[in-house]
Amino acid sequence: MVQAYVFDVYGTLFDVHSVRTDVERFYPGKGKHLSTIWREKQIHYSFLRQIMGRYHSFYDVTRDALRFAANAVEVPLTPKLEQQLMEAYLHLPPFEESAPVLTALKNKGKQTIVFSNGSVNMLRPLLQNSGLDTFIDVTLSVDERKQYKPSPAAYNLILEHTDLKREQILFASSNGWDISGAESFGFQTAWINRNGQPQEELQLSPDHEYEDLSFLPEIP
Amino acid sequence: MVQAYVFDVYGTLFDVHSVRTDVERFYPGKGKHLSTIWREKQIHYSFLRQIMGRYHSFYDVTRDALRFAANAVEVPLTPKLEQQLMEAYLHLPPFEESAPVLTALKNKGKQTIVFSNGSVNMLRPLLQNSGLDTFIDVTLSVDERKQYKPSPAAYNLILEHTDLKREQILFASSNGWDISGAESFGFQTAWINRNGQPQEELQLSPDHEYEDLSFLPEIP
Repeated sequence: MVQAYVFDVYGTLFDVHSVRTDVERFYPGKGKHLSTIWREKQIHYSFLRQIMGRYHSFYDVTRDALRFAANAVEVPLTPKLEQQLMEAYLHLPPFEESAPVLTALKNKGKQTIVFSNGSVNMLRPLLQNSGLDTFIDVTLSVDERKQYKPSPAAYNLILEHTDLKREQILFASSNGWDISGAESFGFQTAWINRNGQPQEELQLSPDHEYEDLSFLPEIP
Repeated sequence: MVQAYVFDVYGTLFDVHSVRTDVERFYPGKGKHLSTIWREKQIHYSFLRQIMGRYHSFYDVTRDALRFAANAVEVPLTPKLEQQLMEAYLHLPPFEESAPVLTALKNKGKQTIVFSNGSVNMLRPLLQNSGLDTFIDVTLSVDERKQYKPSPAAYNLILEHTDLKREQILFASSNGWDISGAESFGFQTAWINRNGQPQEELQLSPDHEYEDLSFLPEIP
């Protein structure tokens, strides 16, 4: 039986696509293009740093990805603009079902855990600004081990902070690669497939697949 | 002084964009879209398998990426079609300067090494079909260590097969992430920036940057 629900943050509890609007405000006509590259490079750089053994915090990785994206779409990025755009990540809107689902899980007596590649200086303000912190028991960042998801060492951090076995944990993420990593590590997994993507071809299928978080409290 | 030139294969000595033509033949109107996803997922899956510690050969990774791509663009992929498309990777055209540059390096008495994530059953036919094998002294695949680039363990394979020090090796690749990995490992690097991309923001700048391979024999 599931004792604890672990949630990824970016794209799972919070909508990262909202960043597009902020970018569009500063760079009219470039919002979609720049924010897409920014997000792709953010993930790409965390993977590369993990493989090269050159960990930098996710804050740094996010800023570096923004710099690459600005170069790629050929727009100027002043230090002030960079700072303002980075703040978009502290004010992401939660998905509409995030708070109700967390509340329902708490009412069922489940433990709620947030687990992210994001560094604590990104996670704490985001959870506080959105009010979601009220429904979350534990907030964990890979920064504590300096090992990015989807490495086994990253997911192991969850076991180190609970008295639970892997199979007592339901891991929810909208990111296919994150689900593959969690499945590989031995968690129960729920892939929140918000965009109707095909499953990753990594021979690590999720245990559950949903369009959003709403059905999570139904899992026994 | 540079004693050995190490070349990446896909995108560096050989043009992977030619795959688009093969895909287009089987799926009219979908060639660009499918082949772009195929290539992105191929790299993505090699990274994920490296991070998760679940190595599969690059042949398998390439096939899995093709299956994902076919699902993503919603076209049927029979076993026969899959086999035919996989063969595109054995018949990639070399860039026009690849053979002349390798010849020039051999004439200067340099050692020429090919080093790829590709498995030997992909590399050998490709090099033979193109005739480039004549100009290459050593062909190395990460498959020998089952560690993908850009991990240090992968690049170390080159040292294990030569009597050279890192600084005596010039590493050439068109892939920014591969250059970052080689630079991180301590090789001299030449980024073959064929598409006018911005540099990666990983604080690991290449020592040289060129539009194609032509200038490599000028490096002292």
